[in-house]
Amino acid sequence: MTETLASGSPLIPRREVDFLLYDWLGLDGLLGEPRFLHLGRDAVDAVLALSEQVAAETFLPHYKLADQYEPRLSSRGVEVLPEMGAALRNYAQLGLFAAGFPERLGGLDLPHLVVSASFAQFAAANVATAAYPMLTVANARLIVNFGSPAQIESFARPQIEGRWFGTMCLSEPQAGSSLADVRTRAAEAGADQFGARYRLTGHKMWISGGDQNVSDNIVHLVLAKIPAEDGSLPAGSKALSLFIVPKILPDGSSNDIAVAGLNHKMGYRGTVNCLLNFGEKDGALGWRVGECGQGLRQMFQMMNEARIGVGIGAAALGYRGFRQALGYAQERIQGRLTGAGETKPVAIINHPDVKRMLLTQKAYAEGALALCLYCARLVDESAEPENAALLALLTPVAKTWSSEYGLAANDLAIQIHGGYGYTRDFDVEQLYRDNRLNSIHEGTTGIQALDLLGRKLLHDGESALTVLARRVVACCDRAATDDALGDCSSRVLSAWTHLAATVDELRRVPIASVLPHASCFLAAFGHVIVAWLWLEQAMAARRRPIDDGVDRDFLNGKVRACRFFIECELPRVEAWLNIVDSRSNIAAATSVAEF
Amino acid sequence: MTETLASGSPLIPRREVDFLLYDWLGLDGLLGEPRFLHLGRDAVDAVLALSEQVAAETFLPHYKLADQYEPRLSSRGVEVLPEMGAALRNYAQLGLFAAGFPERLGGLDLPHLVVSASFAQFAAANVATAAYPMLTVANARLIVNFGSPAQIESFARPQIEGRWFGTMCLSEPQAGSSLADVRTRAAEAGADQFGARYRLTGHKMWISGGDQNVSDNIVHLVLAKIPAEDGSLPAGSKALSLFIVPKILPDGSSNDIAVAGLNHKMGYRGTVNCLLNFGEKDGALGWRVGECGQGLRQMFQMMNEARIGVGIGAAALGYRGFRQALGYAQERIQGRLTGAGETKPVAIINHPDVKRMLLTQKAYAEGALALCLYCARLVDESAEPENAALLALLTPVAKTWSSEYGLAANDLAIQIHGGYGYTRDFDVEQLYRDNRLNSIHEGTTGIQALDLLGRKLLHDGESALTVLARRVVACCDRAATDDALGDCSSRVLSAWTHLAATVDELRRVPIASVLPHASCFLAAFGHVIVAWLWLEQAMAARRRPIDDGVDRDFLNGKVRACRFFIECELPRVEAWLNIVDSRSNIAAATSVAEF
Repeated sequence: MTETLASGSPLIPRREVDFLLYDWLGLDGLLGEPRFLHLGRDAVDAVLALSEQVAAETFLPHYKLADQYEPRLSSRGVEVLPEMGAALRNYAQLGLFAAGFPERLGGLDLPHLVVSASFAQFAAANVATAAYPMLTVANARLIVNFGSPAQIESFARPQIEGRWFGTMCLSEPQAGSSLADVRTRAAEAGADQFGARYRLTGHKMWISGGDQNVSDNIVHLVLAKIPAEDGSLPAGSKALSLFIVPKILPDGSSNDIAVAGLNHKMGYRGTVNCLLNFGEKDGALGWRVGECGQGLRQMFQMMNEARIGVGIGAAALGYRGFRQALGYAQERIQGRLTGAGETKPVAIINHPDVKRMLLTQKAYAEGALALCLYCARLVDESAEPENAALLALLTPVAKTWSSEYGLAANDLAIQIHGGYGYTRDFDVEQLYRDNRLNSIHEGTTGIQALDLLGRKLLHDGESALTVLARRVVACCDRAATDDALGDCSSRVLSAWTHLAATVDELRRVPIASVLPHASCFLAAFGHVIVAWLWLEQAMAARRRPIDDGVDRDFLNGKVRACRFFIECELPRVEAWLNIVDSRSNIAAATSVAEF
Repeated sequence: MTETLASGSPLIPRREVDFLLYDWLGLDGLLGEPRFLHLGRDAVDAVLALSEQVAAETFLPHYKLADQYEPRLSSRGVEVLPEMGAALRNYAQLGLFAAGFPERLGGLDLPHLVVSASFAQFAAANVATAAYPMLTVANARLIVNFGSPAQIESFARPQIEGRWFGTMCLSEPQAGSSLADVRTRAAEAGADQFGARYRLTGHKMWISGGDQNVSDNIVHLVLAKIPAEDGSLPAGSKALSLFIVPKILPDGSSNDIAVAGLNHKMGYRGTVNCLLNFGEKDGALGWRVGECGQGLRQMFQMMNEARIGVGIGAAALGYRGFRQALGYAQERIQGRLTGAGETKPVAIINHPDVKRMLLTQKAYAEGALALCLYCARLVDESAEPENAALLALLTPVAKTWSSEYGLAANDLAIQIHGGYGYTRDFDVEQLYRDNRLNSIHEGTTGIQALDLLGRKLLHDGESALTVLARRVVACCDRAATDDALGDCSSRVLSAWTHLAATVDELRRVPIASVLPHASCFLAAFGHVIVAWLWLEQAMAARRRPIDDGVDRDFLNGKVRACRFFIECELPRVEAWLNIVDSRSNIAAATSVAEF
């Protein structure tokens, strides 16, 4: 069983959620907008409280079990841990799959910000179990956005109700990140009430939730190519179309989809991951969503949502590890304070190096959560082009930074536990293994870096960068007037100025000399963004009136973590940007034989 | 089964070993010294060739099996994987336990440098199996150095022959890093041919190799306290004495030692790790080694050897992952080169970001191996006080830097494999889990940092730093005259100058304001050391005559990795040192409630 803390639940404390949503991100104001008038703060708070409670009571208890008893493939298909099935059915009954959907589809029409905060609790409790609703909700939203009314009614609604689950089928064994090389083919096979019908054949790899015995049906969204008249598959990613391919067909018969094998992972083991064969017999029946050739564009909407979801999951894992390390450090008695002579041993939280590791985790985990929730807030306002542009720019950062530094936080959580943290008796070991996935799936860090620098900044990002610059500079200007934050403000502004100058310069030089440094640039960009958002958090903490029963220590902690990140982490930006600025070709010019 | 590479063995190539030992570290000169005249280069090369072959043929094949089938505790004691037992018995038969011991004890009297290079191959092949001889050899050496002739004959010699294995029993459940708090007690119980005899009672935690069914006996070296006349245990670490406590007593009966449980680890699973109860009945019989109260001092000799051993293991894991990623990157076809239009997909090694990740791994893994072998070379010359002082200074760096950056290399090896790297079908997943232990056991990174800064530099390290300064500056002076390395030279010199100034300053201020930054200082110190040693390696490569059939690409690769490390990694030093220089108290001053 999962450990419990003397200090209570290891999930995200409500004071943290309330601070981020209300004190910082202005959820009150959002709820006051006409489109959210059906909701009051009471209703939102009830969802947040329910999420914390249900995550702790139904997701958390099988965290270790789901790691020990991986999903198994038998002749009846994939079987998952019974506790996981029960937790997911309960999640559906509570209406949590539907929370973010419009009322006309049976949803609560909650702001994405609230849905995200709710999801973070479930991810903190059990990220592998939480992956099923994350994928299902993203799948359903894609059908709602691009599907026909009949498709929405028959394939999205059961997912919104949590009766059916969804997957996304993009990668193939020979084509992970390079979707242009997808070989799954969709041959025309008439039409019916769900639209143009096809028979699909091909192999899809890395399919999370590809089969399970929890939901009544599974809706696969499959990227495939429609062959030309001569039977050949057109080259390139513009030939990709998107298809709804259910496990069970509307007539109740089984579709032609076989689980060819399961991938056995380092962590995240509760989320079954499959190699699926479509069309081993006559071809799997599927219906096209939207127009031919629009598959990748449509799928990107789902991927972008999934990328922020991955970021939230990574941040939540980092947060949980921080909380568990914080609890352990208060309970574990060992060593004496330097210079205190032969007095009694102390709780290890009193050792300066342990405090450093805790504050680093706090800065990483709370910083990542803030970044992801900031993006969720942008989703709620993405009807404004300025916000949509900024969201597009920050999505690869939210995904990557949270994955990299959530993992770094988990690494430190192990270190605080010492040898115990390396054993499977403690959760931090599993949190670390789970989190290692997040910089790989939904686009590796390298892919995100190319997206940020190549697509978002150098191709069409001028306006997004202008928006970002305005917000960063405005934040620094405001912080400059606060004595406690003035120094932080000038450091962030200085890092931002260097970053902006680097982007300016990169726009002037051949892109081939720039892209080899995309990962390094992303590292620098991410740290500057998080520093800015820490400054935002610190200002929100400083703004809070001190006479309303607020937790002063908590608010001081926010200011401290801000200062720590800006003093001890932000200086790395200079080193990264100097490398980008130099555009050293040393790695790119290395020949294979020289390695 | 473990994957094999199209490019051959994933172990450390002989050209690498030969380059480090002969071209750089002057093994030829060492072998010319009178004490090594019994050895020729042929004999040494035969050992190196044998090690590579035996590691590949007997240690490598059960790498994954030993992870899947952990040691089990039954009523007959701990049972390990049969393949592991067979590999270790073969290792003993080949005389490899004895390799570093004097001829009078049945050894080959090989230089520690050669023994270390041999060990690195076994660690690369299977670090969990290699841990048994590493601990056994360190145990035997301690008895040889501090034990009586009878103790050496009866307890060290069977280990040197590889018939018995050894452990070190330091930690207890309540005392991991804080050995002053050890509670195991040793009550006087007469004397016999092995010296003063005691009965030990207590619990020892984290005992690697604490029980197994491979060797005929197990020699535990146990730290314990001799009670005062009133039965109380004296406080502090100066009260610790060291005891030989065999599993099977000289009369053939079982000693009073029980395996109370096994620790189930994230990785390194083949190395059984036990909680041992000494003296559940009458007390476990043991014999004191050396004088009362000398236990910790004696054990430190073993720990220092073990720390370099941990560094070599961590470097070897990093190296193996690098080799496997390099092989995979040449075989895996995916994606197209930017700007090349719709041409054919390429092997991923052609993507600049993959090259960056490979070169980073090369810089880390080869840098760590060089650092550890440099230390092994110092062991061979440690009769000179200057070398002994430098060895003491570099030991925490060799242990920590190799552990941290060996793991970072393994992280990148996974990333190059993409989703495949996260599955248990590929070795890189296990290498990463295995390597995560290395920054914990034999003293965590935090402990090493306090050792480096508190003990080695601020207390008694002036002379060691002077030696180091002379060597670093001399290296930079020589490199400055080489056009290809001049820029690198000035960067290393500049980083060194900053580092030395920081140490100067730290010596002037209260130590309590310094120690909170020990980890940050260690990070900076380690990077400067490795940059210096990369410059050494590059110069060795540049010195090689080009007309003797040498692999030019290999030598160019050394120069490239040197430049890469100094251009892209060394700049981090400035950021770390600025934090140390500021002596920010932000983490140390954070109250528990503020976290």
